[in-house]
Amino acid sequence: MTRPIEWRGEIEGTLVLLDQTLLPTRCEYRNCKTVEDVFEAIRSLRVRGAPAIGVSAAYGMIVGLQTVVASPEVRDDRDAFDRRLREVSDYLASSRPTAVNLFWAIERMRRVAAAEPGLSPTNMTERLLAEARAIEDEDRQMCSDIGRHGAELLTDGMGVLTHCNAGSLATAGDGTALAVIYAAVTQGKTLAVYADETRPLLQGARLTAWELQQRGVPVTLICDSMAGHVMKEKRVQAAVVGADRIAANGDTANKIGTYTVAVLAARHKIPFYVAAPSSTFDLSLATGDQIPIEERSPEEITALYGCRTAPEGINVYNPAFDVTPAELITAIITEKGLIRPVTAENVKRVLAR
Amino acid sequence: MTRPIEWRGEIEGTLVLLDQTLLPTRCEYRNCKTVEDVFEAIRSLRVRGAPAIGVSAAYGMIVGLQTVVASPEVRDDRDAFDRRLREVSDYLASSRPTAVNLFWAIERMRRVAAAEPGLSPTNMTERLLAEARAIEDEDRQMCSDIGRHGAELLTDGMGVLTHCNAGSLATAGDGTALAVIYAAVTQGKTLAVYADETRPLLQGARLTAWELQQRGVPVTLICDSMAGHVMKEKRVQAAVVGADRIAANGDTANKIGTYTVAVLAARHKIPFYVAAPSSTFDLSLATGDQIPIEERSPEEITALYGCRTAPEGINVYNPAFDVTPAELITAIITEKGLIRPVTAENVKRVLAR
Repeated sequence: MTRPIEWRGEIEGTLVLLDQTLLPTRCEYRNCKTVEDVFEAIRSLRVRGAPAIGVSAAYGMIVGLQTVVASPEVRDDRDAFDRRLREVSDYLASSRPTAVNLFWAIERMRRVAAAEPGLSPTNMTERLLAEARAIEDEDRQMCSDIGRHGAELLTDGMGVLTHCNAGSLATAGDGTALAVIYAAVTQGKTLAVYADETRPLLQGARLTAWELQQRGVPVTLICDSMAGHVMKEKRVQAAVVGADRIAANGDTANKIGTYTVAVLAARHKIPFYVAAPSSTFDLSLATGDQIPIEERSPEEITALYGCRTAPEGINVYNPAFDVTPAELITAIITEKGLIRPVTAENVKRVLAR
Repeated sequence: MTRPIEWRGEIEGTLVLLDQTLLPTRCEYRNCKTVEDVFEAIRSLRVRGAPAIGVSAAYGMIVGLQTVVASPEVRDDRDAFDRRLREVSDYLASSRPTAVNLFWAIERMRRVAAAEPGLSPTNMTERLLAEARAIEDEDRQMCSDIGRHGAELLTDGMGVLTHCNAGSLATAGDGTALAVIYAAVTQGKTLAVYADETRPLLQGARLTAWELQQRGVPVTLICDSMAGHVMKEKRVQAAVVGADRIAANGDTANKIGTYTVAVLAARHKIPFYVAAPSSTFDLSLATGDQIPIEERSPEEITALYGCRTAPEGINVYNPAFDVTPAELITAIITEKGLIRPVTAENVKRVLAR
């Protein structure tokens, strides 16, 4: 598998992103040479998935700071550097409103800079690049740990439903939800994965189906509307999804349609698992009601690949996420272990490990 | 509104069908001059919706019988006519496996022929054309009656969710589920309709959104995966859908995704209504478990308008229908009145009216 996110070079380097909007028919990479390129890549979902967005934003800050380091007038001006750092941080933070990892990664980079006010812009950028690399490495380790903790929940012969893409395309490693599947398969378990296509942007059809196929894991593609029927027919015995933001009580924002899968799973007494790193938790929010839900463009629903799928002038509602209440989540699989049952107390306890 | 099904002429006439696969971007009609044309139109969903399929199949039988009536050798041979009638009936009945109205309309036409063995092929075809017209007229009246009975369930200011297309494009009249909405609007009630786009074939986006827009009824298009979120946000206070086949106990087969809507409605304590004519009931089936579910081609999911939406060679599961158990249905709205609560006893009682 080609890596979907790669930093090439040192502080003058380039962020190379797999353009996921072109999958599965084309496999092309974008060189992000300006912070605007990175913003556009995040905004347009060329890179997506909460952890991958965090890693990209961290490297995106280096790209944004290159204008300072490369300029003879300000390359030694730490004040100019700090102003630029704030500018780049605020700008990148506005690229997507829901993914908490975005804010988390940017904030972590800012704290590193704030802790070393004496460093020159060049040395500070080197220090920040090391931090971005650490974020990437930790993300890879996080995927591996989530996979290990989650794999014990899946047994040989199980059918497993997933929604959207929380796989290697969404992280620097093996993913979150799909890391659990990959880890179980590595343990020798045979799984039958059902992938919701995930309208409107078809991340399930284009990305999850593609990456599972690439890795040789048996996968069957269904439309989102078929998940209920698939459960009724007892084709799946577990559902596992990723998360974009999790409140202190475990309420989970994830790709639109996740809530529906959770409601269906509850009706069919099928365990519903969320796999997410601790960075996805936003403990400043008591419950999911406080999570802002991004609304995206109507064209995502009314046209596909330039072909109209709905009449001109039609009114559209396009929320990109929904919130699944903690009561519908059997367990949250984090790199620190399982949160089960999902309560504010257990969230606090596991995250404190 | 242009009529989606029209018989032009007398027994030598033509069945003209609006090609619904081209909506909403193109509004084109097909002249069905052979029974193969009619079969293909039903099979390829150029005409769809259980009642519309029934009406089309009845006229399709006339088209199929024209070869006998037009042939000097057999035009007076009632045995040849009866053989052709059986051939045409069996052929048309194999065009779609789930829509009970298809079998119902064909059987009704066959019974008319069987009751008058003495009529010449020409006179018999005239009699059958009158029967097909009666089926069409009754269908229009049925829509109107369903609308009247159902409208009392909707109140001013309500948000109403619908799935797939059970409207004027699916019947000879105002539809079933949408007849309820049209009738309520005619009574002066303001409704906000939410239309599920209904993957894979997008009947909601292409047809329901189009016909409500044409009729000036406020409609908002959403993806199927958004219905749960829309209910959670209290944007809808009722769901109303059509049906393809209903068992004796009220279990209802309808477009894939209907079951999911019903499960979501139950969780949100939103009434879930099925609107369908009595011809949709198949009392030979005790429960919905006995309803055969049509599986359709993978390409419906993996490509749209010729563009690939999933990787080559991917495994696909594409059930066209699912079954909603009676316990999740608040009422079934028929032309004979409401079945509420939905029990085998009430089904029997209302259908006997």
